[in-house]
Amino acid sequence: MKLLSEFKEKFDREINIYFDEKIKSTKKLDKKATDLYEIIKEFVKNGGKRLRPAIFYYSFSSYFPQNSAKILKLSFVFELFHSFALIHDDIIDNSDLRRGKPTIHKKYDLSTAILAGDLALMLADEIFSQGINEPKIIDLYNEFKQELLVGEYLDTIKINDVDKIMELKTARYTFVKPAMIALHLAKANQKEIDNWEKILRETGILFQMKDDLDGTFADEKSLGKPIDSDLKEGKSTLVVEKFLKKSNNEEKKHFYDFFGKQNYKSENLIWYKKTLIKYKIDDEIKNKIANESIEIENKLKLYFKNKILTKLMKEILNYFQSTT
Amino acid sequence: MKLLSEFKEKFDREINIYFDEKIKSTKKLDKKATDLYEIIKEFVKNGGKRLRPAIFYYSFSSYFPQNSAKILKLSFVFELFHSFALIHDDIIDNSDLRRGKPTIHKKYDLSTAILAGDLALMLADEIFSQGINEPKIIDLYNEFKQELLVGEYLDTIKINDVDKIMELKTARYTFVKPAMIALHLAKANQKEIDNWEKILRETGILFQMKDDLDGTFADEKSLGKPIDSDLKEGKSTLVVEKFLKKSNNEEKKHFYDFFGKQNYKSENLIWYKKTLIKYKIDDEIKNKIANESIEIENKLKLYFKNKILTKLMKEILNYFQSTT
Repeated sequence: MKLLSEFKEKFDREINIYFDEKIKSTKKLDKKATDLYEIIKEFVKNGGKRLRPAIFYYSFSSYFPQNSAKILKLSFVFELFHSFALIHDDIIDNSDLRRGKPTIHKKYDLSTAILAGDLALMLADEIFSQGINEPKIIDLYNEFKQELLVGEYLDTIKINDVDKIMELKTARYTFVKPAMIALHLAKANQKEIDNWEKILRETGILFQMKDDLDGTFADEKSLGKPIDSDLKEGKSTLVVEKFLKKSNNEEKKHFYDFFGKQNYKSENLIWYKKTLIKYKIDDEIKNKIANESIEIENKLKLYFKNKILTKLMKEILNYFQSTT
Repeated sequence: MKLLSEFKEKFDREINIYFDEKIKSTKKLDKKATDLYEIIKEFVKNGGKRLRPAIFYYSFSSYFPQNSAKILKLSFVFELFHSFALIHDDIIDNSDLRRGKPTIHKKYDLSTAILAGDLALMLADEIFSQGINEPKIIDLYNEFKQELLVGEYLDTIKINDVDKIMELKTARYTFVKPAMIALHLAKANQKEIDNWEKILRETGILFQMKDDLDGTFADEKSLGKPIDSDLKEGKSTLVVEKFLKKSNNEEKKHFYDFFGKQNYKSENLIWYKKTLIKYKIDDEIKNKIANESIEIENKLKLYFKNKILTKLMKEILNYFQSTT
């Protein structure tokens, strides 16, 4: 993804400078006070595609090509907020690995992970509060934060409403809200904002589908975390939902023998994948992603032909169709 | 404490209305989405003296008696932030009780407590961001948050620097920063702000001394949590510091047999209290509190005779001298 990787390079360089300055100024409080800041710096450094900051950045620059230094700094908000969400989510899910490395609570301990997550949230808010003072945009940001949290909570209590969780945890959080904040900031007209919102929401749902598919079929190395983690946690993903629709009672019974259990045999995962393939569930989801991607591309061509955000969206849509 | 309890009555009534409105508007996301908001509402309802919001509120109204509805709403920020800090702190310290009731992670579970703490922080930030847009005050608030977090972290890694932790976790967090934010907001002159800062800092240190003393000598019921929790966690409090200075090697050896251990016999606590009394450590701290309280009262009389914050500070200083 050319545009995204160009952005990542610029983003990574600048956020590193930001962390170094922040760490320097925090040293005044206490020399050990910087530990948590270093942990977050390291966590951010370790990876991530910078998807949320990129959507924010290119949404803004689609309408307002100037001011890019200020907007790049504001884009940190979405990566720092995402770091907060991942660090606390990894505790909640008791995950061992994140981006191929031990999670914060495994590498350090529970206390450090709770506080590091809290601090990442505070840093996101600090940058936001220093850069933005428009009430409408402040409201959008507060909604963005609380929607993600409610999504996490619904996920935790296993409400089994796949659509609701996809909507809150991915569509709005990753795609819609970062773009809405940027578009309002750039004073795009309301009609265009509404069209972007629809397109981004649809893309977000596809993104979550791709994620669910990868979480079942990708290899562990490319995923950076165990493939069976959703299964172990008993999470209702789209794949699970489709499996439960198509499978017979015998298969369902077998499924519930290991679904949501921390210790189960690898045969179960192999059986599960085979059954999914037997019912063509992988193909069905892949086709759905491919078809809807084309529809989204058409809308982009129709409404937003020359926007730089369109270029980024096309890269993302192409990535959805890469083989799992 | 008359002024403080008057404030608490008004505060509790208004924050309840706030929560009910917030819960009503959150129902739109999902009917289960309100759970976390209800948990925080309950946690806030369960107690606390509203010390931080009261300091904020009376600091402001000492200079600017109008606008009290807006300032009361802003004072919620400090109670909600404090709720966030307590909920996460209770996880970190593995505490069973808070204000005489089971802690959130005991009553519900770890995930719920992490997310409820996160949400309390987000609600504090939401109210702050909707009410304040002056860069200087935004900076103070961001400092306030991060200083508390660094204090928590230093406490967690047991840096044994009692003064530093007292400074960050209590003096600045409970007294100085809520007042500084209010005084800048009320546009008090810098000379007066500086004088308040000194007085509030000194009061904050006394508050922490009183807290350490109560944490060793008060009865469990009035404290709302086990008296030996600091000991079990191996926390370096002022009392511990003074004990280590005065005791002989034999006593130190005995102390380290149970300090920082979760399971120890009640005889140990009895022996520890006796030894503290033998060395008059309780009297020493009480006298220090009494003497410094008088000094602070004199400064208040000298600089801020007719301010309503002075009246609140006197109530707090009197409370310090109540018997443990």
